[in-house]
Formats: sequence, C-alpha cells, structure tokens
Amino acid sequence: MDDISKVWETLVQPEGGTIVYLVLDGLGGLPDPERGQTELQVAHTPHLDQLAAQSSCGLLDIVGPGITPGSGPGHLALFGYDPLIYAIGRGILSALGIDFALQEGDVAARVNFATIDAQGRITDRRAGRIDTATNRRLCEKIRQAVTLSFQGEYVFEAVSEHRAVLILRGPDLSGNLCDTDPQSTGVEPHEPTARTEEAHHTAQIVRSFVTQVRDVLADEQPANMILLRGFDRYRPWPSLADRFGLKGVCVADYPMYRGVSRLLGMEALPPPGGLEARLQALQSCYGDAYDFYFLHVKHTDSSGEDADFDAKVQALEAVDRLIPQVTALEPDVLVVTGDHSTPAVMGSHSWHPVPVLLRARTARIDDVSRFDEYACARGILGLRPGVHLMGLALAHAGRLSKYGA
Amino acid sequence: MDDISKVWETLVQPEGGTIVYLVLDGLGGLPDPERGQTELQVAHTPHLDQLAAQSSCGLLDIVGPGITPGSGPGHLALFGYDPLIYAIGRGILSALGIDFALQEGDVAARVNFATIDAQGRITDRRAGRIDTATNRRLCEKIRQAVTLSFQGEYVFEAVSEHRAVLILRGPDLSGNLCDTDPQSTGVEPHEPTARTEEAHHTAQIVRSFVTQVRDVLADEQPANMILLRGFDRYRPWPSLADRFGLKGVCVADYPMYRGVSRLLGMEALPPPGGLEARLQALQSCYGDAYDFYFLHVKHTDSSGEDADFDAKVQALEAVDRLIPQVTALEPDVLVVTGDHSTPAVMGSHSWHPVPVLLRARTARIDDVSRFDEYACARGILGLRPGVHLMGLALAHAGRLSKYGA
Repeated sequence: MDDISKVWETLVQPEGGTIVYLVLDGLGGLPDPERGQTELQVAHTPHLDQLAAQSSCGLLDIVGPGITPGSGPGHLALFGYDPLIYAIGRGILSALGIDFALQEGDVAARVNFATIDAQGRITDRRAGRIDTATNRRLCEKIRQAVTLSFQGEYVFEAVSEHRAVLILRGPDLSGNLCDTDPQSTGVEPHEPTARTEEAHHTAQIVRSFVTQVRDVLADEQPANMILLRGFDRYRPWPSLADRFGLKGVCVADYPMYRGVSRLLGMEALPPPGGLEARLQALQSCYGDAYDFYFLHVKHTDSSGEDADFDAKVQALEAVDRLIPQVTALEPDVLVVTGDHSTPAVMGSHSWHPVPVLLRARTARIDDVSRFDEYACARGILGLRPGVHLMGLALAHAGRLSKYGA
Repeated sequence: MDDISKVWETLVQPEGGTIVYLVLDGLGGLPDPERGQTELQVAHTPHLDQLAAQSSCGLLDIVGPGITPGSGPGHLALFGYDPLIYAIGRGILSALGIDFALQEGDVAARVNFATIDAQGRITDRRAGRIDTATNRRLCEKIRQAVTLSFQGEYVFEAVSEHRAVLILRGPDLSGNLCDTDPQSTGVEPHEPTARTEEAHHTAQIVRSFVTQVRDVLADEQPANMILLRGFDRYRPWPSLADRFGLKGVCVADYPMYRGVSRLLGMEALPPPGGLEARLQALQSCYGDAYDFYFLHVKHTDSSGEDADFDAKVQALEAVDRLIPQVTALEPDVLVVTGDHSTPAVMGSHSWHPVPVLLRARTARIDDVSRFDEYACARGILGLRPGVHLMGLALAHAGRLSKYGA
C-alpha cells in the first residue's frame, strides 16, 4: 500500500477523542561541537521530560530518508498527507504564506526580485536580498503601473526580502507554465512558456506581465527584474474532516502555517501574536467545537535558522514553561513533535529525524524520561515515517475501527 | 512513494562532499553456539569500534524482511537502486560476473552443467558440481563444435564449478524466454520457448544451441547436458551520475562487483589483487576525479560461505587493521556496511539485517562504541531498508536540496 492514510480513511469513526498537536518548528538538532549536546539536551525542560516519561516516544523521518522538508511538506506529513503524494506547488505555498485566500482556479507563482545587466543577463537572482520595505515599495509601484488585459485580475504582493508572489484569478487559467528563473546567473531569464496547449492563454498573460514589470523596474537598482517559478493552479484538497472526520483548528502566528491548515479545511484563528497569546487562544477555543487542535511554535525554527544555539535552547525552555497549561486541557491525545529538524550548528532545515512524544490513555509508556533526539531514539514508537503520526493519533483517540473481521 | 530514490534525484545538487563506501561482503553474522557471540563480537576490531563511536550506527534490512540478498541485489540496494524495482536478470548478472563487456541488446542466460539419464531425464541439476577446470574444458569443446546460423555471434564461458554463461549478440534478440531448467530432477529439461511473439527468433537460436550442445556432451560424464535460466536482454541503466550526480569508482577484485559498478556507470579499476593492493588503489585514485568511492572486501563473505567462523573473524580483523588508512583520506562521508549477512554458522547468505556506520560532520553520533549486530541495533539510524543508505549519504555530503518550501 503506497498511501497508508487511505486505509485510515476507510476506518474513521464518527466520534472520538480530542487530539492536540504541539508542533515545535525545526525541533530536532545536532550536538554543539564544544558542548557535545543538542539544543534539546542542553535545554532545561522539566515539563517536556515529565511528559516524555508519561508517553510513547520515538523519532519521525518526516518526509523520507535524507530528505530535508520545507515547512509546507513537513506539516502535511504530520497531518497525514504524504507530501510525496499530496504535492503542493511553491506558488501556492507562497500565496498561503501571505495569508491570501485562494479560490479554486487561481494560479500562483513564486517571485524573486533579481538584478540583470545591460544585456539582460542575470547578475544576482536575489537582487542583493533587498529589504522587505523596498520589496513593498516595488510591489506597489508595479501594481500602479501594470495592467493586464484578460477576463480577471492579478495580485502582486511582497513576501519578505527579495521574495514576492504573483496570483492570477480568472477563467481558464493553467498552472502548466515553465519557470522563468533559469536558476543560474550570466544568462537571460526564460520567456514565460506554456508546458501544455491549454496553458498558452496563461503564458501570454504572464509574458505581458513580465514585459511591463521590466519596464517599470528599469530605473531601479539592484531590483530591476523579476524571476517566476513554481506555477501552480489551486484546487481545494480533501479536508481533515473529509478524510479523518476531524474538525480542526490552527493556532499560529505565521501565515504559512495558517495557510496550510486552511488548505486542509481547518479553521485558522487570527494570529494571536506571541507564544503566550497563542496558548490563551488555544485555551479559549478548546471545547466542543473542534476535535483537532494544532498549536504552532515558530521560534524553535527561526533561532535554529539563525544558527543561534543558545536562542534555540531558550526557545525550547520558553515552550517548556507553558507545557502545564497544555496538559491542563487534558486532551485525549497529546502529541509534541516538529515538522523537521533545524540544527543550530547547520543554520538550516535538515533531514535528521525529529523527536516525537504521544500521550494517551492507551499509549504504551516506555522508559524514555528525557525529551531529546537520543532518548527518543530508544522509545517504543521507534523510527517511523512522519505520515504515520496521524494514524497513531487517530487510533489513540478511538477514531479508527477494526480492519477486517 | 514507492521509490524514494526518485525523490532524491529531483533534489540533487551539482556539487557536494566525497562519499566512501567500505562494503564488507556478507558482514552480518550469527552467534557461534559455543561462544554465544557473532563473528563481529568475537573479532578484535579496535578501529571499527572507534569509528562506530564517532558515527551514526544502525542496521540495514538490505532488500526486505526475510529476503536473503544475492550479491547483485545487495549492492544495488546500497547504491540507491531498489533491487525490487531495478530488477537485474540472472543472465546479465552472470555476464557481469565474468567481466564480460555487455552491449545494449545482448541477451544472456545463466547455465548449469547437468546430468541426464538415458531417457533424457535430469538426475543431477549441477552435474555433481564439476570442478572449474572441467567446466573450462567443456566450454572450449562446445565453442569448437557448435555453430549458430543467425546474424550475430554467441559467447559461451565458464563461471565456476558447474556454472557457465551464454551470451547472444545480434539484431532483434529478445530476453523473453522461459527457463529450460525445470528446477527438479526426474523430468526432462524444458524446450527453449518464447514467452512473447517477438522472442520466437531468439528461441529458435537457443533451441539449435541446446540441441548441438547435447550432442557434443553425449560422451561426457557427469556433465552431459546444460540447463538455462534467467534470460535477460541488456539495456544500459541510469547511472549514479545521471541519478545522483556522483562520479563513482569501484575498487574490487571480483568481476561481479566491478560489473555491477560498471552497470551503474562507475569506473571500475583493474583488479588490484588483494586487500592491501585494493586499499593502495583507493589511495591512488582518491582526489578530484571522483565523488563516490566503493571499496569491496570479499573475504568476509567467502569465509562465511565456507562456514569458517574463525576465518571470518580473521577477515574482519584484517579489514580493521587497514581502517586508519581509510579514515586518513578524510572523506566527507564514510560508510562501513555489508551487502547482506553471511553467518558462518549458516554457511550461506542470509536475510539478517546488516550493521552500518556512517561518519560525517553532520551525523548524530550515538553512544554505540562497538561495531557489531547488537550494538548497532541500538544506534540512532535504527533499522532501515538498505536503499535508504544512499539518501543519507547524499544528504550528509550536502548533495540534496530542501524538499518544498
């Protein structure tokens, strides 16, 4: 069976217990060479350790061996959507990442501001990583100047630094377009080109857009051009409710996570603004309205990306202090894990498996009493694909019936 | 996702670190009933143990649970080619095993010399395991006497003992032929038969060959017949360079391993002749020309096949003495593992998972400090399919980009 989650779908019960996912973004780490311990090992996390002692523990190979998950695929795996099967275009992810309310048929592409020389050849694919304020100014300038003659409209919005997003809304649009970003310098950007017959119309629109933008940016430096990639057409996905009978809610500050949650039919609360506010939002919405609660913690990842080992340790300790308030909700299933590793010593996402703990009345409690990479490696859950997690959560919530008689 | 290696292909970077695979053929073992320890546990291997202490350790289920790998599939798995997907005909493996330079379109079959009685019924499928010298004499006799009338040529070569290989080269040949070996005694060999329409031409050629051989061998005892199986048509495979961006080199004495390596586009050095010579060859070729170095050790397997526990222990100790010369190369990723287990107490290949260690700057170093089956079972890599190894090696060599945003 390629997609085990399809089997869970056939077993889902109409009722069951509540599930809380506490997702610490970029949770997994690597030892600091001088201290010889990982962020989780160095951090003082008495509550997480106590929780581990009351739980089944293990490691999750989130997407697959050696594969470094982006945040989108990482979360999809945790939610029971194998990201190798439920592929999500980068353009769609970018639109979700600015909290844009996509509609079916919208086409989105990721945009880089870039620098080209007098001959039109790319000299910097990221325009010297311009700051977000400049990006916003340029987006506004483009919106003022560029008009497209098609039965629809476009949205052009800053993301951050040199990144932006283009969204086209209208009839008969296609996402089957080649990237204009050649992924190298010293060459000209590719022309917007259709991959299939039915995409010609969309390619024409994009060509007109890029030509106008080039004129608009002609007097700008260093951001005098844009590069497009990851075109994708949005279609609603089968929801957590459709697939697993879960009415879900997302509590997150960053648009990307709310966007992915909405893609799966979860309700995304307005950004509470800060970790403690998020916890209060969780407490406020906890009750009969939802079955599945997703609380997202960003700072564990961003400190890792900043290669700031101590900041990641502090972020973990900050989460730990709030754990009693999460356990006080007494969910039937409580999961703490991450969407990927972000070792501070690497300063980037990585492929290393991520610690996981699952507390439930029916959990086999192992003797893991520290929540870290090495302790969890000896846990009773073993090393598993990330997509397994949702099946275990559903089962422990009493939401899956017997398979066969 | 059925074939995770296809995902790695999409993530491969043009540059990255060097990878060294030290493959100890038949590495895994079983406890000697009297000593209660495996070959690896009995062996004095201070360097391998030290390496384990500096590495991530684990066990590899090379092909699958309960599946005893042949050497060909075992190595394919380690190289990231799932042998259940990248199926290789036994005839092709036999041709590779005698270092025969196959060309696209060649058809090869594995041959057994066998004994038939006066009624043509098989009495021994292996002709009493005739010695290799006799095999060579019979092959020469067949080559002298048998002529085939088709637009091509045939090669008939001894392998060893009762085993030989038939290769047909010419236009429009097919590998879709049934085995003539009925896999039992007391019955006649099957007629060479086409499985598909387009294979009729090839079946005719093989029928003529078998008929003539039977006449040639009529006065021989016990090898008075041949049995054919594993017909396959050779087509070049996607190379390690195509798939994973790795320019590879193989240092091995046995033709089979050089053949499998060449099948994957690796350069196969001439047989150095002996373990120390192989190590020198590795040292000599180590540098900028290659990214991936495969050093093969045969004696760990052959001593296991001989059911010689002490000889296998000595073979492991001989490898251990050379480890400092391998680590001195300072590859970015160093892997020590095997292509399957060959427990001396069984005297044959087995399905038991194989210890693996992976040393790299980004490896999570666990507390495994002995390189053996039981210690590695507690390693942080866990128990994994053999095909995972290449993904991990690529990731640790910095050769895989992030999956999704």
